[in-house]
Amino acid sequence: MTFPLCLFALFLMSLLVVGTVALDTVKTPFGEVEEVLGGSATYFSIAASYFTEVRLVTVVGEDFPQEHIQLLGRHGVDLKGLQQEKGRTFRWKGQYDYNLNEARTLDTQLNVLQSFKPQIPEEYKKVDYVFLANIDPDLQREVLHQIERPKLVACDTMNFWIQNKPDALKRTLKEVDILIINDGETRQLAQEPNIVKAARKILALGPNTLIIKRGEYGVLMFKRRGRGEEFSSRAPGLPLPHSSVFAAPAYPLEFVFDPTGAGDSFAGGFMGYLSKVDRIDEQTIRQAIVFGSTVASFNVEDFSLRRLDKLTNEELLARFREFKALVDFDQIR
Amino acid sequence: MTFPLCLFALFLMSLLVVGTVALDTVKTPFGEVEEVLGGSATYFSIAASYFTEVRLVTVVGEDFPQEHIQLLGRHGVDLKGLQQEKGRTFRWKGQYDYNLNEARTLDTQLNVLQSFKPQIPEEYKKVDYVFLANIDPDLQREVLHQIERPKLVACDTMNFWIQNKPDALKRTLKEVDILIINDGETRQLAQEPNIVKAARKILALGPNTLIIKRGEYGVLMFKRRGRGEEFSSRAPGLPLPHSSVFAAPAYPLEFVFDPTGAGDSFAGGFMGYLSKVDRIDEQTIRQAIVFGSTVASFNVEDFSLRRLDKLTNEELLARFREFKALVDFDQIR
Repeated sequence: MTFPLCLFALFLMSLLVVGTVALDTVKTPFGEVEEVLGGSATYFSIAASYFTEVRLVTVVGEDFPQEHIQLLGRHGVDLKGLQQEKGRTFRWKGQYDYNLNEARTLDTQLNVLQSFKPQIPEEYKKVDYVFLANIDPDLQREVLHQIERPKLVACDTMNFWIQNKPDALKRTLKEVDILIINDGETRQLAQEPNIVKAARKILALGPNTLIIKRGEYGVLMFKRRGRGEEFSSRAPGLPLPHSSVFAAPAYPLEFVFDPTGAGDSFAGGFMGYLSKVDRIDEQTIRQAIVFGSTVASFNVEDFSLRRLDKLTNEELLARFREFKALVDFDQIR
Repeated sequence: MTFPLCLFALFLMSLLVVGTVALDTVKTPFGEVEEVLGGSATYFSIAASYFTEVRLVTVVGEDFPQEHIQLLGRHGVDLKGLQQEKGRTFRWKGQYDYNLNEARTLDTQLNVLQSFKPQIPEEYKKVDYVFLANIDPDLQREVLHQIERPKLVACDTMNFWIQNKPDALKRTLKEVDILIINDGETRQLAQEPNIVKAARKILALGPNTLIIKRGEYGVLMFKRRGRGEEFSSRAPGLPLPHSSVFAAPAYPLEFVFDPTGAGDSFAGGFMGYLSKVDRIDEQTIRQAIVFGSTVASFNVEDFSLRRLDKLTNEELLARFREFKALVDFDQIR
């Protein structure tokens, strides 16, 4: 293993996330919870907090419980960018059936999110790593225009923006290094059922790296070569010319209580690790994908942020090593 | 890499397959073919022929084209167990839409298969490796009772037998070492949506190893420990106690023409490799899974046996190495 076993260094690169904080009501076959802490930026921040210092830009309402602020603070999340506005916090209500791969949205109340304009605090404007969680692509771009060019920008999006704001989304993608979306969104964005062809089309839109989240089937990464980046001579001569491909399985879990936040905690672990080691070569990106998958696998073991809140570094590293054993086929003894 | 790069040894272990030979009519979004060579034992045999000598037990009708016999012979398949009976050859007609993961069966004509009683030739009765392709579980067991106990028995089955002959299937599973089925069949057989719990239930039915085929998402293997088998000290302490788990991705293909036979050619590559190296420790089984995935990835690149017929050892080994690069996350440079 070439990655550092100690996750904490004295000097931390900065990681900025812009996204939502929500109060979620969720029902799964294994239970239900009402108005618990949720939201893309929340899952991202707590996941990333195991690797680096996170700067959070988001909006909450007057009704946002103080205990949630405390939870974020306990994980060292910098809250200077948390805007508290008049009105109610964003709410999401969803349900999963036994096929836990897809959420059925029962209700969405945007509330203060409706008029959210991300304000980047002065001390955040020189930041190295940026994650634009799933918000309006115009807002994602506005964030980038408020800050100095970072070392790396990654973003998420969703079917709603792909369908309703395709041009705005494409403008955003031109300014992004890594796009992190699920397989349905990949096919929808590329208008192409074959995932390899779809990846080729999306890499032509701007990002040099596409990370496709496939739920219980893990993650697939396509990376364009060139632009002076380091690439492996052993990288596969796979079907996409001038690209390399990486496949990571999901950790096989016997108990999945609530998939909410899996994608965002994946992104948090992924970006947190990159920011921590401050490298963006392909080997590091592959390791970051496995760290992201590791954090996500813990997140789904309980509702809301309960599992991530009490995660330990030892648990994180032990499961990262299990991922290695999970995929090895020439060195398992 | 610890496996031998030369696939051909002078001394070959014997591999017996019992299953179907069919004339397939298949339509995919990329074309259609009529009455071409198909059948589980056919795909298995040609796939395995790249590793070892295959002994085929099956039935065809009087109408079975001589050119197909020649194709099997060209690949060194031993045809002493090929029974030619009065009547027509088994026919299958199916269709795939853009989601190539599942076939829609349009027509099945059992014909000579209806009264198929596998007759194991005398010289096949002392065989080391046996694969029972998807046929009536009572027939699968009858095969085992005609031969001496082999080193390893693997079998396939399908939703039809799980639903209509569950008790016969369970009796067969008690005599089998490795069960190779898809994820839908896994959940159906275990009556359990969670794949890890389902695997635990199935391993309790007899097989020490369960290999789950997940189409474009690759393969998941669960292996029970114990019974004096060799196991890795580095095998993951994964959720299934006393078991180890292995995940292999599918090779990301830009052009998938016809998924027919993917599962059977996977099994052929898998069993062919085990038989070739004549070891059944966990490391070898993991490598065999990747060889199976490699052969299957070629098979879907064209209709019928067209691609496997012209496959070369060099192509096979090159793609096996690409699988290594596809999953590596600590040694890609």
